[in-house]
Amino acid sequence: MPTSQAHNAASAPSHNQLDTKAQAWSALFSEPMSDLVKRYTSSVFFDKRLWQADIAGSLAHAEMLAAQGIIGADDHASIQRGMAQITSEIESGAFEWKLDLEDVHLNIEARLTQLVGDAGKRLHTGRSRNDQVATDVRLWLRGEIDLIADLLKELQVALVDVAAQNVDVILPGFTHLQVAQPVSFGHHMLAYVEMFARDAERMADVRRRVNVLPLGSAALAGTTYPLDRERVARTLGMVDASGHPVVCQNSLDAVSDRDFAIEFTAAASLCMVHVSRLSEELIIWMSQNFGFIKIADRFTTGSSIMPQKKNPDVPELARGKTGRVVGHLMGLITLMKGQPLAYNKDNQEDKEPLFDTVDTLKDTLRIFAEMVGGQLNPATGQKEGGITVNAPAMEQAALKGYATATDLADYLVKKGLPFRDAHETVAHAVKAATTHACDLSELPLAVLQGFHPQIEKDVYEALSLRGSLNARNTLGGTAPAQVRAQIARHQARLAA
Amino acid sequence: MPTSQAHNAASAPSHNQLDTKAQAWSALFSEPMSDLVKRYTSSVFFDKRLWQADIAGSLAHAEMLAAQGIIGADDHASIQRGMAQITSEIESGAFEWKLDLEDVHLNIEARLTQLVGDAGKRLHTGRSRNDQVATDVRLWLRGEIDLIADLLKELQVALVDVAAQNVDVILPGFTHLQVAQPVSFGHHMLAYVEMFARDAERMADVRRRVNVLPLGSAALAGTTYPLDRERVARTLGMVDASGHPVVCQNSLDAVSDRDFAIEFTAAASLCMVHVSRLSEELIIWMSQNFGFIKIADRFTTGSSIMPQKKNPDVPELARGKTGRVVGHLMGLITLMKGQPLAYNKDNQEDKEPLFDTVDTLKDTLRIFAEMVGGQLNPATGQKEGGITVNAPAMEQAALKGYATATDLADYLVKKGLPFRDAHETVAHAVKAATTHACDLSELPLAVLQGFHPQIEKDVYEALSLRGSLNARNTLGGTAPAQVRAQIARHQARLAA
Amino acid sequence: MPTSQAHNAASAPSHNQLDTKAQAWSALFSEPMSDLVKRYTSSVFFDKRLWQADIAGSLAHAEMLAAQGIIGADDHASIQRGMAQITSEIESGAFEWKLDLEDVHLNIEARLTQLVGDAGKRLHTGRSRNDQVATDVRLWLRGEIDLIADLLKELQVALVDVAAQNVDVILPGFTHLQVAQPVSFGHHMLAYVEMFARDAERMADVRRRVNVLPLGSAALAGTTYPLDRERVARTLGMVDASGHPVVCQNSLDAVSDRDFAIEFTAAASLCMVHVSRLSEELIIWMSQNFGFIKIADRFTTGSSIMPQKKNPDVPELARGKTGRVVGHLMGLITLMKGQPLAYNKDNQEDKEPLFDTVDTLKDTLRIFAEMVGGQLNPATGQKEGGITVNAPAMEQAALKGYATATDLADYLVKKGLPFRDAHETVAHAVKAATTHACDLSELPLAVLQGFHPQIEKDVYEALSLRGSLNARNTLGGTAPAQVRAQIARHQARLAA
Amino acid sequence: MPTSQAHNAASAPSHNQLDTKAQAWSALFSEPMSDLVKRYTSSVFFDKRLWQADIAGSLAHAEMLAAQGIIGADDHASIQRGMAQITSEIESGAFEWKLDLEDVHLNIEARLTQLVGDAGKRLHTGRSRNDQVATDVRLWLRGEIDLIADLLKELQVALVDVAAQNVDVILPGFTHLQVAQPVSFGHHMLAYVEMFARDAERMADVRRRVNVLPLGSAALAGTTYPLDRERVARTLGMVDASGHPVVCQNSLDAVSDRDFAIEFTAAASLCMVHVSRLSEELIIWMSQNFGFIKIADRFTTGSSIMPQKKNPDVPELARGKTGRVVGHLMGLITLMKGQPLAYNKDNQEDKEPLFDTVDTLKDTLRIFAEMVGGQLNPATGQKEGGITVNAPAMEQAALKGYATATDLADYLVKKGLPFRDAHETVAHAVKAATTHACDLSELPLAVLQGFHPQIEKDVYEALSLRGSLNARNTLGGTAPAQVRAQIARHQARLAA
Repeated sequence: MPTSQAHNAASAPSHNQLDTKAQAWSALFSEPMSDLVKRYTSSVFFDKRLWQADIAGSLAHAEMLAAQGIIGADDHASIQRGMAQITSEIESGAFEWKLDLEDVHLNIEARLTQLVGDAGKRLHTGRSRNDQVATDVRLWLRGEIDLIADLLKELQVALVDVAAQNVDVILPGFTHLQVAQPVSFGHHMLAYVEMFARDAERMADVRRRVNVLPLGSAALAGTTYPLDRERVARTLGMVDASGHPVVCQNSLDAVSDRDFAIEFTAAASLCMVHVSRLSEELIIWMSQNFGFIKIADRFTTGSSIMPQKKNPDVPELARGKTGRVVGHLMGLITLMKGQPLAYNKDNQEDKEPLFDTVDTLKDTLRIFAEMVGGQLNPATGQKEGGITVNAPAMEQAALKGYATATDLADYLVKKGLPFRDAHETVAHAVKAATTHACDLSELPLAVLQGFHPQIEKDVYEALSLRGSLNARNTLGGTAPAQVRAQIARHQARLAA
Repeated sequence: MPTSQAHNAASAPSHNQLDTKAQAWSALFSEPMSDLVKRYTSSVFFDKRLWQADIAGSLAHAEMLAAQGIIGADDHASIQRGMAQITSEIESGAFEWKLDLEDVHLNIEARLTQLVGDAGKRLHTGRSRNDQVATDVRLWLRGEIDLIADLLKELQVALVDVAAQNVDVILPGFTHLQVAQPVSFGHHMLAYVEMFARDAERMADVRRRVNVLPLGSAALAGTTYPLDRERVARTLGMVDASGHPVVCQNSLDAVSDRDFAIEFTAAASLCMVHVSRLSEELIIWMSQNFGFIKIADRFTTGSSIMPQKKNPDVPELARGKTGRVVGHLMGLITLMKGQPLAYNKDNQEDKEPLFDTVDTLKDTLRIFAEMVGGQLNPATGQKEGGITVNAPAMEQAALKGYATATDLADYLVKKGLPFRDAHETVAHAVKAATTHACDLSELPLAVLQGFHPQIEKDVYEALSLRGSLNARNTLGGTAPAQVRAQIARHQARLAA
Repeated sequence: MPTSQAHNAASAPSHNQLDTKAQAWSALFSEPMSDLVKRYTSSVFFDKRLWQADIAGSLAHAEMLAAQGIIGADDHASIQRGMAQITSEIESGAFEWKLDLEDVHLNIEARLTQLVGDAGKRLHTGRSRNDQVATDVRLWLRGEIDLIADLLKELQVALVDVAAQNVDVILPGFTHLQVAQPVSFGHHMLAYVEMFARDAERMADVRRRVNVLPLGSAALAGTTYPLDRERVARTLGMVDASGHPVVCQNSLDAVSDRDFAIEFTAAASLCMVHVSRLSEELIIWMSQNFGFIKIADRFTTGSSIMPQKKNPDVPELARGKTGRVVGHLMGLITLMKGQPLAYNKDNQEDKEPLFDTVDTLKDTLRIFAEMVGGQLNPATGQKEGGITVNAPAMEQAALKGYATATDLADYLVKKGLPFRDAHETVAHAVKAATTHACDLSELPLAVLQGFHPQIEKDVYEALSLRGSLNARNTLGGTAPAQVRAQIARHQARLAA
Repeated sequence: MPTSQAHNAASAPSHNQLDTKAQAWSALFSEPMSDLVKRYTSSVFFDKRLWQADIAGSLAHAEMLAAQGIIGADDHASIQRGMAQITSEIESGAFEWKLDLEDVHLNIEARLTQLVGDAGKRLHTGRSRNDQVATDVRLWLRGEIDLIADLLKELQVALVDVAAQNVDVILPGFTHLQVAQPVSFGHHMLAYVEMFARDAERMADVRRRVNVLPLGSAALAGTTYPLDRERVARTLGMVDASGHPVVCQNSLDAVSDRDFAIEFTAAASLCMVHVSRLSEELIIWMSQNFGFIKIADRFTTGSSIMPQKKNPDVPELARGKTGRVVGHLMGLITLMKGQPLAYNKDNQEDKEPLFDTVDTLKDTLRIFAEMVGGQLNPATGQKEGGITVNAPAMEQAALKGYATATDLADYLVKKGLPFRDAHETVAHAVKAATTHACDLSELPLAVLQGFHPQIEKDVYEALSLRGSLNARNTLGGTAPAQVRAQIARHQARLAA
């Protein structure tokens, strides 16, 4: 607990700070050395989050030990009874977690032995904390991936909803943040659906490699008891698409492998990169010079000094949190680099970055799904409070940068010019329009014909935003017909 | 070209260095500003590596344009003829790459137009460099992933070979680099086979997401020409397992997506982490205090000062190169973070890290396959020059750290003790043996019985290294029977 | 709070998991959406750690406002009184932190206004949370850097102590983990003193750039009140070596700059890299095949399965925690990349990585200082419990790898051979000794003379470990005389 | 499964690819295995860039060897003569670099011996490549840091010039990319001057730690020859501010330390982060919806498909290259993490990232200096071609977001309201103005007085952009008087 000396230390000129060293130390450290070592090496205060997986794994292990005759039926029954009680103690908050017992595993085992005696001491037969913790993390992460899969679906649904409502809204499509060609705002939203769909696919791939059983590898070399590892895998749902149990095939690898944590964090990083890109766009679109969209007030905050401010806090934070998750990826890779076999204590450092990655990703996806798509009003059956689109502002902006110049080139190609020549001809036309400070569509026909004699009246259709949009009518293009087809495809896919 | 002034600058005290600024600048910069801007923005000197993919993509595009009647059959024929000549010019080294033409695409297109006139100018109809470069990189990377898959297989075969020759060699299995339990050296090698097998699986997943066609997305919004994108996909082999063409479904996403590059680099980073772990072990094992193995001389180098040295350069470099690949991953993620849609020039920076990652990974895997497994001697049909195993040194080391203490605990459990009690009893026995500076197996029976009366003569079998090894006979365990089963499984898998 | 449904979800086969979606959501999320948004955007639960700095900054600001006549003396007195009470409330744990009040600043300001009314509402005159939080973090970090400086000194002292006790202990110096030349163990310890001394120097450089005042920049543009920023800087000890106040000179930069956080984390990363290198050596040295040192039991832990284990947990964790800190560096850089001016909410994400970096570094340095050097026994005035050195094992190992081969080459150079020729001659001698499985010093004189006729009896002195050690008697070399001189230099420096 | 077309596509058909393994290898690999190992372990093709530093170091070493009587004056003269010839061979391009000679050091030494015989073989007396390469890299990097310092100054001068020309141009200052308060465009430019000034300061700190001599540490333990290391340091300009020679004090540390490379790359990363922030702003400002600035055409490029495009390629690439440099930082840290003492071959991997970081940073700074500030027209003595500012567009944008709302609050505070109350009052006024779709300054006095009776006519001065700007007249604020004072300070500093 900081004292007022400590307070002065932090804020006052440093020369006073450590006048008497001993005093300083006593003031500055909140704990004696031995407590510090305990805290430094223990993990219970963060790994207790694994308690459900730990108990599930222990129950599956005990059931198999009994089935194999390694422990008796009575011991098995005692273990089940003890674990039921521990579960209710933890759920009710009555369970006392002890730093001295290092980790979630020993805390639970110790309590079990307290409750059921020798049966508790028999539970650890044929296993080690090395394979136990690997099993726990995999079970826990599998569950989290399933939740993330749901949240990715929610977000995609929200984006598809917004797309469906805005197929015919014209946005200036940018490359290099310069106006490029008109695009459907719905089409733009669907670009993000593609990204999050890939994330979901990657998460499914990761899940397949997470859902493999290390238990039975013991400390590093396997065990001398006649375990049935596939039975345990089946009990824990660690099965492949055909229902066959999937177990780690090499004990040394099983206890030291953290590939799945790194691979998950890499997939989460990519997902956050997508979130950061969407956030960047939301932030730019909300800037007064764009004014393309608004988000609901509760995703913004004000300023302590400027009374007029409404800041897009949520997208900004999400963009910032990308760094956090990427940092965890870097941390985990650095952690594993150059580690000899088999388990080393370094690996205990896998948990906090993994936990924080999961939390950050889940919170972000959940908030984005609602910020984009709104929330269901049970009274109306409609979603409300998603992003508000300012279609006129978007269309106005699309008129600024000669967005249909490519259409003029394509028009000339259809008249027989090679594309390269058409491209050059249009560049001259754009130059002329710039001089006249007008759009290509505002140049008189005679002027346009000065660039190429085959230009006729119908060119103005090609030069209109909507004409340009409708013309991009190939698979994946921005024409409303294509966008509607994609929306239908996504809706079918996401309903599955 | 550095002059002697420049030379002095680099080595002499800095105060002389910039006496006359103008002189300094002229001396210090090898190029005038405009050349620098050209070089800064151009990519041809690294992206020319994509030439085969670029030509393949162009040919597929032209074939489709002709089939759809967008260009004439004669133009198509001219393009084919021109590309054939360009191919032979590049292969022979006669092709002149020009910085002024920015990139591989414009260099080839310009030469094509030189060779075949207007047909060349028609090639770019309905496409943009944005979708073109995305297609090129994907085609190129697909080919590289296939090579990497082969190299991963080579390395696994080498490891399995070494494993097969060393099933019965006993190594001290370590956790925390402390002697833990005896393991089969073959078993230890197979742990790495598991890792590289996972890498291969991940690469296959990445390949699926790489092998998707962006072409036809044009600049960002699709195109006004009636393209048949699925036809192009089929021509380029971008098809799924059922042979259906796979194309990017959203043009904005198609031109700006670099997920596949990041995902590939993440998979490569994990693979290099595995290499770094193996390297770390090889280096430790070659240290004089271990002396477990040797690698062939040509993977080592000497010292310029110490005449006796033979250093494990290749494993050390490989360990170091892990940082290089991880750095590329971080670079690519940082590159994409917060980029708005669609294509931005930042993306040009994706290539060098990706190229270097591919080169580093391929070189490393190839060298490791031969360093571990040796090379085929065509005369004998045998592999020669792989790692040399010093079995006696390994076994000697396994006798050092009470490696069979767990076996004594298991022995007591089988006599009826709960595992936790057995564990504690053995801890006392180890303490006694430490005091006597002997192994557990060297304690007289009477002494052992002092720790527990049920200990009998057969305990010495459990306490022997080989007894311990043989006893770990469950799936994934280190018993030779298990190791042989795994070797058979891997051999079958790798022969497929 | 997880329910038992949630529990089943995490561990049971996933197909049951989301049978009814609505249920799942209610079970799976511990908080309604609006609470989540609040928590997502609020920072009070981590930034409350800044409370002392926040109050110190506010008091300095209020004192200046009063001195400049912007607020009255009575308001100033009220603010002082209120802050004194808040300080005691926080110290006693009575202060109620509220999520609804977002951050440490508003929590304290709101309580102040509750306590002293309008005076509290006047405190924020001429400032914004943007400059306020930047000031708080800088003040807090300055204090932490001072603590880190002390801890770096402690660790250096510990290393110098161990060095002083082991000047004459001979260790095989390694390059490439191959025996290279004999070195003094004291010399080896001093290599780490150099590293941590550089860390201390870097931290001092960082501190100079941390200790600069942003306050007075307001939201981004400065303020309309006649602030005296230099007065505030002086009050807060933000002064340079000559005592002149140091304030940020540009308001836009002042509120958005996070260079100091990144620079600190980079310095911390380098320090952790040094810790990781020392840890790697401690771990290797403790491995049974080396057996060079022991560390005290309380820095190790046992195994849940292997009764004989004593694992070097602390060095392993420290090596692992390097990844954690490096990850934070990466996260912070990613956070700032591409941010436009001025303050963006992304910046709120700077705190958790910074806080965790500070905590990790401080804990690690403190533990290492004691693990290496031991702790003071007040009874004896001696330090006890530091690392235990096994000198015979080290010396034995130094005899293994022809560690004195370079000495033989140098011997021949002194006889007139060019170094390159001498190097080659000795390589032949080493080859011969290898064949005879003996050290160079064990070859008979006649045999040695076979390699070069000028070799005489005195060669055996050069070939001895101690002769080799003593001969490296130039500045920075390993000869005991040099090592003692360095120890004296460090002791003087560290006593300052 | 790729079809045969696909095979043609990517390079060679994959189905033939491994028909006969030998063939495959020959087709797939451009080099036989032994060449690959040579290339994998050699460094000459990238480290030859160090040749000037290598020769400078060798000459200083030889001079000292002669002065100490370790080699003769004639040998010294021969070495000098040989090195002069090698210098001219390298400068003229006549020098033949050989892969077989591994690195720059052996290439030069071998040529020297060819040229001057035994004297060449004596050069390596008392040194090793380990201390030699560390010396070379430090000498080279010192020179590069000096160039970077000059370039940082150029860029600051360019920014100050633009600031000086735009002190009175009003830009909407943003926080959260929302209009916050009006700022001087000159003030905004100066924010970047602060950042690059900090970069320069950091580089100077790094230089101090780079400019230290490792030579004389030999392989790892020092040497048996009576070297005078301080003489060498003096010759090479490795001296402190007082002119005292600075040498590495511990040989083990000297040969294995790469802190300076990491610290440099961290400083370079921060500098690139600043460049990325400026780039982001330039890109946003050039977007049609902002239209605040233009950059000269040669820093932009067009589109292969859209004839109207002029894209800000240079700022985009620079933003992208931030990832590249950050990646190198992460690579270098990963490289060093967990390395035991002393030199390991991993360290050879330090060079390429370091070289590329230097190149990227230098190119970027040089281009930015000219892109921002233009280039000197010798005819007029004026700089031309820097960024073009569209002052009306900026001022127009500043009128959009109630940028002077804080001024109204401050106005009320001066009338006696506590700031918090004033803040709330203005929030109501802003709400009213939003309803009327007008600016605060467009509300009639009567309406304003409805919010607070003390509001008088003079409020309109406070509500004007220029009134707001002028009012922020404290140190570091945006009032033109302050900005001019800062410009003067920077001009004086940069002229020094």
